[in-house]
Amino acid sequence: MFTQKLGIIGGGQLGLLLTQAAMSFPVQVSIYDPNPHCSAAHYTRHFSKGDFDDKERLIAFGSLQDAVIFETESVNAEALIELQEKGVRVISCPKALQWIKDKGCQKEKLKKARLPILDFRYISASEIKSYNDHFPIVQKWRKGGYDGYGVQIIKTKADLKKAKEVDSIFEEMAEIEKEISVILARNELGDIEFYPPVEMVFDPVANLIDYLIAPANLSLKKRRQILHISKEAAEKLKLVGLYAIEFFMDKKGKFYINEIAPRTHNSGHHTINGNITSQYEQQIRMALGLPLGSTKQIIPCLMLNLLADNTKGRTSYKGIEEAFAIPNVQYTLYGKEEVKPGRKMGHAIIMEKTIEKAIEKMNDVRKKLLITSHE
Amino acid sequence: MFTQKLGIIGGGQLGLLLTQAAMSFPVQVSIYDPNPHCSAAHYTRHFSKGDFDDKERLIAFGSLQDAVIFETESVNAEALIELQEKGVRVISCPKALQWIKDKGCQKEKLKKARLPILDFRYISASEIKSYNDHFPIVQKWRKGGYDGYGVQIIKTKADLKKAKEVDSIFEEMAEIEKEISVILARNELGDIEFYPPVEMVFDPVANLIDYLIAPANLSLKKRRQILHISKEAAEKLKLVGLYAIEFFMDKKGKFYINEIAPRTHNSGHHTINGNITSQYEQQIRMALGLPLGSTKQIIPCLMLNLLADNTKGRTSYKGIEEAFAIPNVQYTLYGKEEVKPGRKMGHAIIMEKTIEKAIEKMNDVRKKLLITSHE
Repeated sequence: MFTQKLGIIGGGQLGLLLTQAAMSFPVQVSIYDPNPHCSAAHYTRHFSKGDFDDKERLIAFGSLQDAVIFETESVNAEALIELQEKGVRVISCPKALQWIKDKGCQKEKLKKARLPILDFRYISASEIKSYNDHFPIVQKWRKGGYDGYGVQIIKTKADLKKAKEVDSIFEEMAEIEKEISVILARNELGDIEFYPPVEMVFDPVANLIDYLIAPANLSLKKRRQILHISKEAAEKLKLVGLYAIEFFMDKKGKFYINEIAPRTHNSGHHTINGNITSQYEQQIRMALGLPLGSTKQIIPCLMLNLLADNTKGRTSYKGIEEAFAIPNVQYTLYGKEEVKPGRKMGHAIIMEKTIEKAIEKMNDVRKKLLITSHE
Repeated sequence: MFTQKLGIIGGGQLGLLLTQAAMSFPVQVSIYDPNPHCSAAHYTRHFSKGDFDDKERLIAFGSLQDAVIFETESVNAEALIELQEKGVRVISCPKALQWIKDKGCQKEKLKKARLPILDFRYISASEIKSYNDHFPIVQKWRKGGYDGYGVQIIKTKADLKKAKEVDSIFEEMAEIEKEISVILARNELGDIEFYPPVEMVFDPVANLIDYLIAPANLSLKKRRQILHISKEAAEKLKLVGLYAIEFFMDKKGKFYINEIAPRTHNSGHHTINGNITSQYEQQIRMALGLPLGSTKQIIPCLMLNLLADNTKGRTSYKGIEEAFAIPNVQYTLYGKEEVKPGRKMGHAIIMEKTIEKAIEKMNDVRKKLLITSHE
């Protein structure tokens, strides 16, 4: 089976970390991305420029590969399905990608499978402005959202003015106690491995994960419950590949599936440092037809997203020496050449025995490291 | 200081793992190697072909970089010294490389610094065949040895026939109880970090490390002793950069420095999985002028070298699926396109709580994975 050709669609931070993991396998890595200056492009001799929605180019790229993995939902699912039919191994399953990338279809699937979700309704683009039911409500664009972009809370009727007129779902607002993510890998044989649940602490302003704690602070009972729902979801929905399931836990302790991502996830960066097999390696193992690796966590981790400040321009790292002097912190800086306000530029993994100590260090990192534009 | 240009001299397995570590930094990586099909060459857009002894080409390559690191002692030290004088950061220190790469000079340095070594004498190429003192004795070529190549035991006068006629040192044979390696990083400020000592178990046939155990099975007293000698060596010899010090411990428990490598080392592969900062990241931190990272070990590791069998030809991996199904084992396969008898093709890191369990798994890996040539 070796040496295989492995195509990675998307060369952002996830593509970079997938490439990094692929280096431990005897494969030839090719990267496909619209931007030849993307993070991963520097680390391959085989770069293909193309849009994620360019079906023809995607098929041309994928046809040269033995296996294809992708870092983003925005990739054209039809192209991947066609590649799969041609015998290219595509991980995660492109048919799942197809219903996942439309949040309306995703909700419908989850509902039909009787998985726990918050109530929702479809609101078409033309109906947005005339919505006149109860508030607050959460608007989620059916397509094109990512990282909190495309999700907004509509508190009052007046807020509807700001709402973008695109086909959406309007979802009930839960009283959220915690947000939890469960990353899982499931192969064609039905073998399944779960990473320990992680707790995501959101930045309410940026509407992005601010930091996360792995493992999540959950009782054994709650932990079992959430893994049980995750297993049910994976099996009922016939998920094959690597998936992150994001959950809300409400004030009463009830779990709701918020959404599913058919790919490696920001909430699994720490698995590089803290787990036997990282989520990146896991996806590659599956793409190469190898057995799943152990997901056991060996040290507690806190993961902090490192965001750009509010400037725009060529990237500059300030205080990097001071930040790197903080012990037990590992940094990954994605090498993005340009900053934009709030852009994800890297992450820090803090490895401490107690969460209090980890939070203290995180605050120290925040104080010391500034990612901004060159004067 | 960022984005920096980082040149890696040598694209074998260490160069590959250095490149993998470099991906977490906002740097531009260039690789220099005589072989454009070397392991690391696939993972850069900036490859320079050149011999390790080609001073002119090395200077041309290095002059384009902000910092240079190297994976092999066979690189021309004069070229690196010249680069350093021009203001390129070279890690490890090329002046140390210069005396380390001649085992005669290295021994002399260690002796002058009153560090513990085995007795030795210089034997020039023309004196080899007429050597007539006591046996057994160990011949070490002054130059050009690596990985056990260039070291041989001369048991009797008759064995002298097989001895290669090159300038050598003849070293006393110790009654070896254990071989231990200590990897350390020391920067220009004199900051120093030690990795926990590791125990190297040799394959007496291949004369290569067979597997290693980290941390080494040493009493607290012995551990302190060996770290004390390592510190003395680093300070007396003014080592700047990343070094592996290989020790013999004799039956009486006395330590002798066997040799020093001015670079990342086979005995530190496990630091990727088992320690907060890997040896590879540590070298890059130094090259970029960043503070040293924590060397703390978070899980015990056993490292097994994965060697090719006795064939020659295009690489083929047999039993890879079975091998990857063994839990708590991480593999790194270097992607070398050709096997040669006994060639290092990869390594496995086994993460278990007890050494007995780890050895059991290692034997399972050996049984299952065969790296051979295509029929």
